[in-house]
Formats: sequence, structure tokens, C-alpha cells
Amino acid sequence: MSLIKVKTTRRTSFVNITHLVKEEVRKSGVKSGLCLIYVPHTTCALFINEGADPDVIKDIAYMLEKLIPWDDRNYAHAEGNSAAHIRSSIIGNSRIVPIEGGELMLGTWESIFLAEFDGPRERKVIIKTMPC
Amino acid sequence: MSLIKVKTTRRTSFVNITHLVKEEVRKSGVKSGLCLIYVPHTTCALFINEGADPDVIKDIAYMLEKLIPWDDRNYAHAEGNSAAHIRSSIIGNSRIVPIEGGELMLGTWESIFLAEFDGPRERKVIIKTMPC
Amino acid sequence: MSLIKVKTTRRTSFVNITHLVKEEVRKSGVKSGLCLIYVPHTTCALFINEGADPDVIKDIAYMLEKLIPWDDRNYAHAEGNSAAHIRSSIIGNSRIVPIEGGELMLGTWESIFLAEFDGPRERKVIIKTMPC
Repeated sequence: MSLIKVKTTRRTSFVNITHLVKEEVRKSGVKSGLCLIYVPHTTCALFINEGADPDVIKDIAYMLEKLIPWDDRNYAHAEGNSAAHIRSSIIGNSRIVPIEGGELMLGTWESIFLAEFDGPRERKVIIKTMPC
Repeated sequence: MSLIKVKTTRRTSFVNITHLVKEEVRKSGVKSGLCLIYVPHTTCALFINEGADPDVIKDIAYMLEKLIPWDDRNYAHAEGNSAAHIRSSIIGNSRIVPIEGGELMLGTWESIFLAEFDGPRERKVIIKTMPC
Repeated sequence: MSLIKVKTTRRTSFVNITHLVKEEVRKSGVKSGLCLIYVPHTTCALFINEGADPDVIKDIAYMLEKLIPWDDRNYAHAEGNSAAHIRSSIIGNSRIVPIEGGELMLGTWESIFLAEFDGPRERKVIIKTMPC
């Protein structure tokens, strides 16, 4: 099990952590297995999608703000960050990727993103590899 | 593998099952590994988010009803519970949490919730721990 | 680890792949464990929901198009398939199912669906079983 630290710079930030996860897989020595990526923070989520064109994650952030706006007069939670909790709950706080030949089996266009919806903050991500 | 039973009391209910999952992890004796929580019902979902302030899950339920309303004249499914199936499919029917030192590595504010969107019902949740 | 190929016929297609996953579990010989189903394509997702009444997945597709429309003048991504990437990121590109007695522990009404949001295409799905 390893912990990586990720800093975000804005309220909504999507950080490509693929290289950090790959490094942990390499260090683990697991040749065939699974890699769990888990974020233990309730305003964060993890998702896997295109990392090549930055407009893709821009559009993901745009649509999440459109669907689940930061401000809504019916939110009850006093901290004012309900949108972050809702987005996190729907997207999910973990992803799992198969490992073969010592490498994550990511598709050609796939990158792993940490999403922070109530930053800027420093967050930790747990990475756990399992041989099988 | 263990099964836990969860009763819900309203159409939409979010039940904090963290203590039940922790108990199964303790009984399993797994010190380092993974815990899979899986709900085999198509109007349910599992999510992990803040359990301290009940207004957080209230806001999650509010937003899901706003985005995916119970009633929509274009739904085709004859049983009338399409919203429950849609919410379940988007959020997902499982979550996975790392185990270290014999404990779930949940963050300070994280709790595990069973979401039922077409209750009240008695539902089962499958818990499977894996050493690694 | 096995790869299965899935062909889609329309832009949005939900393909029931349950029988293909079951066949891989049977071939693996795993009696108790986990099955990871993973799609390495950024316009695809995997979800588990009702496979008996085809109107359920029809309603899921309807609501996704309503919430995250194919056309939106604010999308920045030049390929024109932002909706597919957004839906894929929110739903997720993997599912995990427990195995007991050599069988997937799917609920009575549960089927596993590959969702393609930018088809038609031929896609691959990775299936990895782990004893535990």
C-alpha cells in the first residue's frame, strides 16, 4: 500500500495522476493483478478518461457544474459545498485497473484523474496492488 | 463472504452501513487487503461520502430527485420505477475499500451508504474481504 | 485475464455481456473470488442493472441523453463526442462482481452491460478473475 499526495490549485481541479500510479505499480513488482486507486476525501472523486486533449476534462467539469451547480438555494448542508459531496458520491471515490506484464492495462487514450470539487487543497490517494 | 440484511423505511433511503461492514472485516481476520461491498438489487446503489452531517445525504437525495425525477412522461418501463434503475446504474452497485492493520482505510469523514431508490424493502448486501 | 470483443450498431448501444462474462468465470475455474470487468475505451462505460425488461435500459439511455445531451454549444472538445466522454467518466469504466460456488453472485434481475456512447464500433472488454 502506498500513499501519494496531490495538490490542487482551484475549487474544481482534475489532476492527471497516471504517472504516479504507474510508478507505484512498478515499485510493487506485481506482474499480474489489480491496482486499486482510492481517495479517502468526501469532496473528491476518481475517474478514468481521455488525457490527450485537455478540452475533454474541461467539458466534464463544465457539465458537472451545469448539472450539479455549486449554488442551489435548496441545499441544506451548512458548509456550502454540497455540490462537491454530490459529484463525489455519484462519480465514486475509487477506480480499479488490471495489471498484466507489470503494467496497468490502460487503453491508449485512458488517463487516471483525481477530481477535487472543493479545493484548493492537498489530498492523499491510496494505491494498493494485488497479485493474482 | 458474508451477507448483511438492511431494512429501508421510505421510497428513497440512504442507510449508513459502515459499522456492519467494519464488523465483517474484523470477523474476517484480514489484516491487509481489500473489502468489496456489493448490492445485488437493481434499484439500489452504494456510495461513500460524509456521514457526520445528515444534511449531506439529504442534499444528495434532493439533487438526484431533481436530476432524475421519479415521474417523467417519457419513461417506458411499465413498473414506474425507472428513476430508481437509472440512479442505481449511474452511481453503481459496489464499492471497494482498502484494508490495512485489520481496519478499513476510510477517511475521517467517510461512511458507506446503501442507497435504496424504490423502497421500503429489505435488501441484502454482500461483503467479501480479500487478503493481499 | 481474457479479452472479449463486442460490436455495437448505433451511436448509443447498451450490450448485455453477462453470458460472455459468465463463460470466462467458468473457464477460469475460480470457485470463490472476484471478477473485474474493465473497458479500456473512453467513450464506453460498464453498468449492472435489469436485463429482463428492455424498457429499463431504454429509459437509462433516454435520461442520459436528456441530462448530458449530445449537442451543447459550450462543449470545447473538437471531436464532437464530449457527451460520450462525460457519460463514461460519471458511470465508470469497470465493475466488480463477487464469485461464489464458481458463479458470479449477480442478483436475480442483474445483467452486466457494456455502454457505448460513440458507436458503432468494435470494442474490447477485459475480464480478470481472482481467487480469494
